Formats: sequence, structure tokens, C-alpha cells
Amino acid sequence: MFDHKKYIPFQPLKLTDRTWPDKQITVAPDWCSVDLRDGNQALINPMDVDKKTRLFLQIVKMGFKEIEVGFPSASQPDFDFVRKLIVENLIPEDVTIQVLTQARESLIKRTYESLEGAKQAIVHVYNSTSTVQREQVFGLDRDGIKAMAITGAKHVRDYAEKYPQTDWSFQYSPESFTGTEMDYAVEVCDAVIAEWKPENGRGVIINLPATVEMSTPNIFADQVEWFCRNLKQRDQVRISLHTHNDRGCGVAAAELAVMAGADRVEGTLLGNGERTGNMDLVTMGMNLYSQGVNPNIDFSNIQEVIDVVEYCTELIVHPRHPWAGDLVYTAFSGSHQDAIRKSIKFHKENNLDKWNVAYLPIDPEDIGRNYEAVVRINSQSGKGGVALVLERDYGIELPKWMHGELSQVVQSAVETTGEEISPANIKSLYEKHFIEVGKEWVLNRYNLQTESGQITAEFALTKDGPTMKGGGTGAVEALCDALSKTYNKSIEVTQFDERSLSTGTTAQALASISVLVDDKPYSAVAVNEDISAAALQAVLTAFSRS
Amino acid sequence: MFDHKKYIPFQPLKLTDRTWPDKQITVAPDWCSVDLRDGNQALINPMDVDKKTRLFLQIVKMGFKEIEVGFPSASQPDFDFVRKLIVENLIPEDVTIQVLTQARESLIKRTYESLEGAKQAIVHVYNSTSTVQREQVFGLDRDGIKAMAITGAKHVRDYAEKYPQTDWSFQYSPESFTGTEMDYAVEVCDAVIAEWKPENGRGVIINLPATVEMSTPNIFADQVEWFCRNLKQRDQVRISLHTHNDRGCGVAAAELAVMAGADRVEGTLLGNGERTGNMDLVTMGMNLYSQGVNPNIDFSNIQEVIDVVEYCTELIVHPRHPWAGDLVYTAFSGSHQDAIRKSIKFHKENNLDKWNVAYLPIDPEDIGRNYEAVVRINSQSGKGGVALVLERDYGIELPKWMHGELSQVVQSAVETTGEEISPANIKSLYEKHFIEVGKEWVLNRYNLQTESGQITAEFALTKDGPTMKGGGTGAVEALCDALSKTYNKSIEVTQFDERSLSTGTTAQALASISVLVDDKPYSAVAVNEDISAAALQAVLTAFSRS
Repeated sequence: MFDHKKYIPFQPLKLTDRTWPDKQITVAPDWCSVDLRDGNQALINPMDVDKKTRLFLQIVKMGFKEIEVGFPSASQPDFDFVRKLIVENLIPEDVTIQVLTQARESLIKRTYESLEGAKQAIVHVYNSTSTVQREQVFGLDRDGIKAMAITGAKHVRDYAEKYPQTDWSFQYSPESFTGTEMDYAVEVCDAVIAEWKPENGRGVIINLPATVEMSTPNIFADQVEWFCRNLKQRDQVRISLHTHNDRGCGVAAAELAVMAGADRVEGTLLGNGERTGNMDLVTMGMNLYSQGVNPNIDFSNIQEVIDVVEYCTELIVHPRHPWAGDLVYTAFSGSHQDAIRKSIKFHKENNLDKWNVAYLPIDPEDIGRNYEAVVRINSQSGKGGVALVLERDYGIELPKWMHGELSQVVQSAVETTGEEISPANIKSLYEKHFIEVGKEWVLNRYNLQTESGQITAEFALTKDGPTMKGGGTGAVEALCDALSKTYNKSIEVTQFDERSLSTGTTAQALASISVLVDDKPYSAVAVNEDISAAALQAVLTAFSRS
Repeated sequence: MFDHKKYIPFQPLKLTDRTWPDKQITVAPDWCSVDLRDGNQALINPMDVDKKTRLFLQIVKMGFKEIEVGFPSASQPDFDFVRKLIVENLIPEDVTIQVLTQARESLIKRTYESLEGAKQAIVHVYNSTSTVQREQVFGLDRDGIKAMAITGAKHVRDYAEKYPQTDWSFQYSPESFTGTEMDYAVEVCDAVIAEWKPENGRGVIINLPATVEMSTPNIFADQVEWFCRNLKQRDQVRISLHTHNDRGCGVAAAELAVMAGADRVEGTLLGNGERTGNMDLVTMGMNLYSQGVNPNIDFSNIQEVIDVVEYCTELIVHPRHPWAGDLVYTAFSGSHQDAIRKSIKFHKENNLDKWNVAYLPIDPEDIGRNYEAVVRINSQSGKGGVALVLERDYGIELPKWMHGELSQVVQSAVETTGEEISPANIKSLYEKHFIEVGKEWVLNRYNLQTESGQITAEFALTKDGPTMKGGGTGAVEALCDALSKTYNKSIEVTQFDERSLSTGTTAQALASISVLVDDKPYSAVAVNEDISAAALQAVLTAFSRS
């Protein structure tokens, strides 16, 4: 039954002197990818060794230096994979693998067996500390659960001594940290740290999991700030975060908690993981990137990341996934498209070296995407969108007074089908509407004679056909005069625009014109290597419409 | 090129006396669905009238009272759809439709034409106020942009007077609010409000768009708190939010900004919308629900919501989408499964009326999902998972001492294939391993004679075959005695468990037993309507293994 009354509001910590909301992230945290452990554990079909290897190499390639690779004491395939990484020398010198284990001796023993021969490694031990887990799952009180943690910490420390050839670091997670009383979380972690003695040079990480996201992200940040303030040996350990996305705020929680003092963030590429997934490393990394902070991770080939993750997890990346989705660099609405066009133009014209473009938080090209994806035209698109497509894809810079007319043509075309229209179709509509002209209205030849700023001209539509004569201060005016006399209609040029389609002496000129014929407006476009011929043909085409 | 240095960090407002981090949301905000406008504008194939109608009816059914239905002045299909809603009387008495328009007179005029005959409606006018838009897109200064807003507000007010039969409310959005200087945003909104005079009873909404998500969500909350504090007629208007998800924090931003004082939230079902999408109404609504706050929206049939949205948008809902995705109520890891099983049992045994289950933030049944989805078994699953599946799907309550043995059997089966295993396959493995027995080891008949607490017994494996004789204080002991004598082996029962599979007099008894035969352990299970026969057959089966 849908009844909110069966749920209890999360009871937040009282921390009114918090400092994190005044901070900003200016340096990326240390990252730890848990794709091969937490991510893999949550797959319908867990990765086989080939997939694990492929994903591991991708994660290494992107620049991750700490990678949790499995839970070897709980799964034979994980054990085998860790052995493979070590035996086949697949771990670069500057990369540290990490493995998870529960706090029981037999499992810790097996964990160390899996790691034999590693140059360096992090042994990550956890037990659950929340009230729910203590009362309902373990049936133990605070002291009982703390004793589990201490026993586990001792075994981790003692077994490490049996493998002195490896540089060991230790990590402890009070699992379900967010559901744990903060004073108790500190008490347990202090006790674990006391066993591990980071003051003697041992690398120690305290990892704070939001195993299930239970509150708004600011409350998590308060918890982390309080925890950091009260942990006895805060300065001798790294504080790590491990958020999940049950309330859709896993990234926000990690970001605010880094502001609250954490040093390190665990997550997965594109957010794979149990239930709603882990904190997404791509989103948080790119968030930092877009704020001018070096993420220390290379996202320059985002498509490769997507391809490998989709292959290995058998889960798709949603088209609206932040930074990565197929639709993220599209703009469908006309006002957005128009603003993007103007904003990009403004950047070019003013040689701006900092990116600050409307509706595009980053330059998609940075991560291997491009502008082709930025604009699609559908019935919601406005004038600017159509113009942008023509300019971007075909170098046709539409004069502003022509935007409205072409836009109407495109809009009625897409409203008929209700579907998106391709750039090629837009160009085709443009050509059909403005350029194409009946055979009888093609300018075949013209003669212009100038004297004292006055032109006398002759125009012929066919090689041997009759000529029309006219005069004026320019060729266009002379043609209008000739047409006016020949057909007994008034013609007035209201808009004229001519620009080159390409550079160099063989450049094509594109002339756009709007005329009033007996007070009715007609527009047309013509292309020719000869700038005069282009302009004259445009007039002729426009006139032919009347 | 992948280079973070081309991006400028967002410059936050200075607001050190913020109050929102000490607040929690205890009452749902007003909701406004913009699925049919902002959502529709961002689709590869915009919805046709049938799809729009279907989605509108779904949104109404869920309980939304304010629904933005289109941008009628920009799109003929939107215009036609608004007319249809009004002419065909599809809008319930207590639902208010809202339409968007730019701040130009011709568009405002057309907007009112689309709304003629509506009982009540919100006319939503916007113009963009950010520095980027002013400088790069409009080429106007602060006064110029403010004048656009005021002119728009006047037209909205004046055209409303031409349609006195409708109860009009007005909404203004300083579009790209987050990129606008806060003092200027207040200045523009104050000016718009002054035109609309909410003090005379006019419904007025000021909607604050994070058109592009530009900062961590706490900064947005600071902006909203500052805005609310400084707006002259704050108490006479509703403050609305319209966040997007570019940094993956659209829900967090809306939540924190509601804590900061906003009254109303715009968004879409499952987060459809331009680029990364709008704020997801399902996630925020269910977040409130899970905290014991009535969302005032009915999510009890979440599958219907998913089906309609997928059909209308032609976009899939990701399997890890918060609250809604296919994988959200699954637990693959053994420790999670074990904890869920114990936690649910604890709730039942203690008749807890408040939900507080490990790893399951809500009871999936509340929204029409169920436990069948909670557990799947793969090579990462542990003992608890297998036991839970047997209990949940087949009513077989596995004795705890049997968890490990069955788990090993299942684990090696799934490690061979690397794939998930179905509940039916688990049951089949269970039966094959513990119950199936060679024909020659089926108990055919038995006689038990008791005297002074001592049993003398005869057992036969075939109808006319030889009998085995034994004695002891119980039937099981007697059978062990008989087997021991007949086959010259030692037998000792180490574990025994018998329970009924169903209730009533014809209940089947399920006996599980573990014996040591010459000090080696063997387990077996048997089912029979006769509790003695079940226990004896289990012993026999276990013994047969030796």
C-alpha cells in the first residue's frame, strides 16, 4: 500500500557551525575505481576474466591510480582474476590494486593469498556498524560490533607481516556509515586506526560508505565534516567516500562531502553498481573539469569509455546521462539553438580563450564529441536552429532577414511528419525554396556598359532569345528596370546580401535577395563564380516567383 | 583538446548566514509537470496529439494540479493540443494548465488565443537574464533586458483582460537565473511583480530556472535563499524552481533549494528534458515519500508511469534509475541478501510498523514492485541469498547448517557458466543434491515398537526384501543402529531439522539431516506426509551417499 506514514524521517546530526558550504573544490580528490568489485557484484551477468581484464586496462588507461579489483575471498573468479593481474604483470608500477574482505580471519587469510607477489596493495576490510545492522542482522551491541572491527583490523595487520615483499596499505569501512551514530562511527574507526598505527608510516584509509543513500546530500556532508573533526588521528589517514545513488544524489553527496573534508572518492565509470548504482566517476570528474579543475583522469575519448563499460556490464548508458549520453550535446528548441549560434560566434569574433557558451557547459570536442550533434531540427526548433545547421554543416551563412522565411518552410515540413529533419533535408528545402528555378528563368548572358556611374544593360534568358534592356546605378537596378519594363510590373529590392562560399579566386559567390514585385515580397538565392551573375540570377529567380 | 584550463570556476554568492542547511523538507512543495513542454521539446520525435493526450491523462491521474502543456505560440501542434484540451473538456476542475511564451507581444497574443475558454490557466512568460545571454545573445545591457521583461509582463497582464472568463495566473522566469547576478535577478523580478500586482489577488509565480546546471547544488540553494530574502513582495508570490541535470545533481539542487525557501518545483516524470533532462519528479517525490513525507502524488503503480513515459518519449528508463529502474530492488551480493532476509524477518517477528530494512529504503510493494525482484543469484551471491530464494519462492526454510553446503553447490554451478541462476534452478540443484536417491535406498516400510521409552524397529527397503533391525530412544536412532549393524559402519546424527511445508493435516513434512558416517559428513533431505517416514528417509539418503 502506498502510504508514506510507514517511513521515518532521517534524523540529522546537529552541526550548525559547518564550514563546508563556504568551500569549493579546487583540487580533484584521489579517485578509486570500484568497477571491478562493487560494480561487478551488481551485474546480472558478472564479468568473465576477459571482460574484467578489458575494463581494468581501460581504467588504467584513463589514469586511475587506485583500483578495487575484487572480493577474492568470496568468489573464486575474483580470486583467479587477482592472481592473473599479479602473475601476468598487468598492474603498472604506479597503480595500486585494492581488494575487499569481510572482517573474518579465514577470509582475510584467503585475501592475502590472492595478493601474494603484488608490488603494493590495499587490503580493504569492512563490517557493518549501523543500528539496523547491529540490531536486526548481527544481533550484537556496539561493543560487539566494535570488537569485530578490531579483530578484523588485527588480522589484516598480522597477515600483512607474512608477506613483507608487498607494500601494504589498509582500508577500513564502517559499512552503512550513514545509518550509524556518528560518535560510534568515530569510536570504531579510532579503534581500528589504533591497531594499524598510521603514525609509523602505514598507509591507512578510512572509507565512509553511504551504502544506501538515506538523506539529502547536505546531511551526508555534515556527517563527514563532524567525523573528520572528531577522528583522533585525522591528519594521519586519508578519508574516503563511497556514495550510492538511491535518492539520485550520489554525485552531489560526494561533492559536498569533499568540500566537508574528504580526500578520496570511490565510484564507478558511468555509475554502475548495486541497485541504483555507485557514485559516477565520469560525472564527478567532468563536473570538476567544467569548473576549470584538473580531474587527473582522461575523459578525452568518452566514446571509448562508454563502449568498454557497455560491453563489460551489458548495461546501456542512458541518452541523457550527464556528460556522456547521446543527447547531451543536442539542442532542440529554437531559442537554445539561436543562443548557441550567437554565443559561439561571439567567442570566435572576440577570440575568447575561456569557454562560456550558452546552453553548452563544455566544448563537446574536448571529449571527442562534436557540434554535429548539437543541433537537430524538429517542429520545436526555431529560426536560429535552421540557420545554425546550414552554417555549420554547409558553410551557408543565411542573412538574418531570411531566417524567418526558411524557418517557416522547415517548420511546416516537420510538422507534417512530426519527426526530426536532417541537415541534408534542411539544405534541400533551402535549395528547393530559394534556388531552384524554371528553365526559362535562367540568366543566359548579360552585357553591362558603365558610363559616369550609370549602367546600361542587356539581359537574355536564352542564347538566342530576346534581350531585355534596362538601366540604373548598378547591375541589379538595371535588371529590375529591364524586368519592370518587359513585364509591366514594379520591382523594388528590399534586401540584398552576397558572400563567398569559399575562399580563393575560384570562390563561389552566394547572393541572397528579397524583392517586392507589385508590393508582394519574394526571396531567392543564386550561386555563381561571378558575383554579378549570382546577384542577377537571384533577382531573376525572385521575380520568376511572382 | 582535453584541457580544463579553458573553463572558469563558477563564482558563488557570498552568503555565510544561510539557514537552509539546518532545515528539512517536512511538506511536499507544489509540483508542476513540464513533461508536455520542456520534456516534449527535447525529444527526437516530439509527441503527436495522441501521445500528448495519453501523457496528460497519466499526469492528471497521478495527482498533479499544475501542468505545463506546451509553447503554443512557437509550435502549431502545441497550439492545437491546447485547443483540444480545452474544447474537449479534458482538464479536470482542480487542474490548472500552464503554457510558455517568450516576452514578445505577437507571441503573447497568440498564447492567449490558444487558451480561450480555459477555466483557469497560468501564462508563463520568460526572457533570459544571464550575463552570457545579455552580452553574447541579445547584445543588450541590464536595462535593456529588464525592459523586455517589463514589456512582456505588461502584455501578459493586458491581454488577460480580454479574456475575463478565465481565472488567470501569471508566471515569470528569469531564464538562465543561475548565471544571472542575484541583485539583478531580484531587480527584474521585482519590476515584473510590480506590473502584476499580486497584492490585488492575482496568482503570481516567480520561477527560478537552473537552465543549465552550473554549480554544486548548495550554491543554487544559497542563490534561492538570497533571492527569497531580497525579493520585495516575497510573501505575495510563489517561488518555483526549474532545475536541470547537467552535473547530475538536478534533484539535489531542487531539494536543497526547497529547504532554502522555494514553494514549488517544476520537473518531468523520470527526468526527460533538454540535454541531460529536467529535475525528475519521480525521484524527488519518492525521496520525500521514503522520509515519511506525503508527496501528494500517487506513485503506487510505478510500472504504469514507466510504460506511458517510455511509450510517449521513445526513451527507455535506465535499469538503475532511482526508485523506478528494473534493478533497483535487486540485491546480488550475498551479504546484502543475508542482511535483507534477517531484517525482514526481524520486522515480522517484532511486528514493526515502521519500515527500516537494511539495503531496501522502501518496501517495493508500495509502488507495485515485489520481492521476487529482490534477489537473483549469481557467483557473487552468498549463503543467505540462496536460502532467501528457496524460502521466498518455494516456502522451503533451509536450516542454517545447510546454507553453506547448498551455497557451495550453487556457487560452483554459477561459476561454471558465469551467469545468473534462476530460483527454479536453485531448487533443482537443492533437490538433486539433497533429495534424489537411488531406487535401492527408498524406505519401503518400517515397524516401530515402543516400550518404556525404548524403540525396537524393523526397516525394509523393498516390499519383500530383507529387514534391518535396530533400537534406540527414537526412530532415527533406531535406523542408525540398524544401518550400522547391517553395513558395519559408524553413524552419528549431527544435525536434524524437520518442519512442515504447508499447513493442515495433509501437510508435507520436510526433514533435513546431517550425519557422520565413519566420521565423514553427509547431508540429505526428504519429504513425506508422515513425519517419521520423512526423517527416516532423510537418514537413509544421507547414509546412501557414503
